[in-house]
Amino acid sequence: MSDAAGNPAPFVHPLALVEGEIGAGTRVWAFAHVMRGACVGRDCNIGEHAFIETGARIGDGVTVKNGALIWEGVTIGDGAFIGPGVVFTNDRAPRSARLAGVARSRERWLVPTVVEDGASIGGGAVIVAGVRIGAYALVGAGAVVTRDVPPYALVRGNPARRAGWVCRCGEKLAVCSGRATCAACSATYIITEEGVQPCP
Amino acid sequence: MSDAAGNPAPFVHPLALVEGEIGAGTRVWAFAHVMRGACVGRDCNIGEHAFIETGARIGDGVTVKNGALIWEGVTIGDGAFIGPGVVFTNDRAPRSARLAGVARSRERWLVPTVVEDGASIGGGAVIVAGVRIGAYALVGAGAVVTRDVPPYALVRGNPARRAGWVCRCGEKLAVCSGRATCAACSATYIITEEGVQPCP
Amino acid sequence: MSDAAGNPAPFVHPLALVEGEIGAGTRVWAFAHVMRGACVGRDCNIGEHAFIETGARIGDGVTVKNGALIWEGVTIGDGAFIGPGVVFTNDRAPRSARLAGVARSRERWLVPTVVEDGASIGGGAVIVAGVRIGAYALVGAGAVVTRDVPPYALVRGNPARRAGWVCRCGEKLAVCSGRATCAACSATYIITEEGVQPCP
Repeated sequence: MSDAAGNPAPFVHPLALVEGEIGAGTRVWAFAHVMRGACVGRDCNIGEHAFIETGARIGDGVTVKNGALIWEGVTIGDGAFIGPGVVFTNDRAPRSARLAGVARSRERWLVPTVVEDGASIGGGAVIVAGVRIGAYALVGAGAVVTRDVPPYALVRGNPARRAGWVCRCGEKLAVCSGRATCAACSATYIITEEGVQPCP
Repeated sequence: MSDAAGNPAPFVHPLALVEGEIGAGTRVWAFAHVMRGACVGRDCNIGEHAFIETGARIGDGVTVKNGALIWEGVTIGDGAFIGPGVVFTNDRAPRSARLAGVARSRERWLVPTVVEDGASIGGGAVIVAGVRIGAYALVGAGAVVTRDVPPYALVRGNPARRAGWVCRCGEKLAVCSGRATCAACSATYIITEEGVQPCP
Repeated sequence: MSDAAGNPAPFVHPLALVEGEIGAGTRVWAFAHVMRGACVGRDCNIGEHAFIETGARIGDGVTVKNGALIWEGVTIGDGAFIGPGVVFTNDRAPRSARLAGVARSRERWLVPTVVEDGASIGGGAVIVAGVRIGAYALVGAGAVVTRDVPPYALVRGNPARRAGWVCRCGEKLAVCSGRATCAACSATYIITEEGVQPCP
């Protein structure tokens, strides 16, 4: 099926809840929820039990695996991969909004998080509010990200630390004299103290 | 809507399952399940995909975020915050109940866990059965709690270790000569070897 | 209820999705999904919000707790325990299948994972693709398993490291002069550099 302009219609599983905006070709699976005011781009795949809150923004071509939890304040770039059970957060010092005697302004607690284009977050990783995960970075499964992740970086552990660099295709790069050629796809990179740059 | 005594009625999303007891003003969202014999207090918010098992006890004013899993043996105090994807456990050495040749009594495996009033557990944290998380403590996102957490303590990591103290409002406290004044809300505390006490 | 051969019928909660094969006596709870082409054995218990993908294989007598995510490429032996919120993975360097300019063959990314008979995986643990978790091993809650786990081993942490040995019944073993007797069930074991063997 497609619309009048020839764009493929989105698919929404009968057991999904979609109240927000989803782009052409995007599929949303059972028990997932895209809230009103959430924005999901084209050609995305939103897995079962995933949750995308009002105010969250997701680009085009993004894979959101099952059970991932994406809140207001989170922005995800094109082509990113959000693994199964990934937990975002948007508050660095959460308290119950119903806790007697404690009042916290929205400005105080709502902290934005960004995942840049092409980045991947492995299954079960936890993203502390306020970090930026750079383009094509790879967050290892189960990592707890507490600081910014540079583009093309591989990070692992709790707290997550850099364990190398990866290619745009995901393969780990072997760096030699400030250069690297991907063993899988032959892309080449220059690595400096400022980070990784693909060769033109 | 309210009952004859003027208490606001609870709200149950049409796609939630609520068989247990929930208090006035409590809301339960889609795909969440409060089992028969679970007890949830007043003015709570139970997020989507959350699960509250028979025998679990949750106080008043508690926030349970999406996908949190709360079992028999777990008791949660008033005003606590249970973050998204938080996993409780109630058995320190689990085996399948259907594992041939292994019989384990309920007394042996069912270990109680307590979260005291006003405590917060960050997203994706895992709580090993048998611990007590003290009042107003803050468990960092992705932490794995294996031991008791004192009141007002901030803990992080796997296993979780103490990384400071927090105010009742959630702000980290700067301790000086055994005293601390919260930079956010001006509450004052005395810190001794026994822990933190709010000044009267 | 039972079939003509006297086998107890499986139970499927009205809010579960079961398209795959499930054995006699197996129960599947609300908001869980067993996909077409997934294979689940007899007498299993599949908790709420669990997800079992096409191609996953689960033995007999397995407990899959709530929210566990089990993918193609994962094989789980008889009598295993998969804790709440456990996240398996099947790709060591995931990228969105919709990421522009990146093509990855199925042979490259799909990595098999095995959980042997009687093993237990604690709540919230994350299993990196490609590992083998040995028979009766015990993965601690919140562990991130990045390497093979020997039979009867207890592992914890991120990354998971060996912290002892456990009995078939789950109890931690006190090893003395290369031998151990379980304090709970009196089973006896010989421990060598090659690992643990039950005494005949």
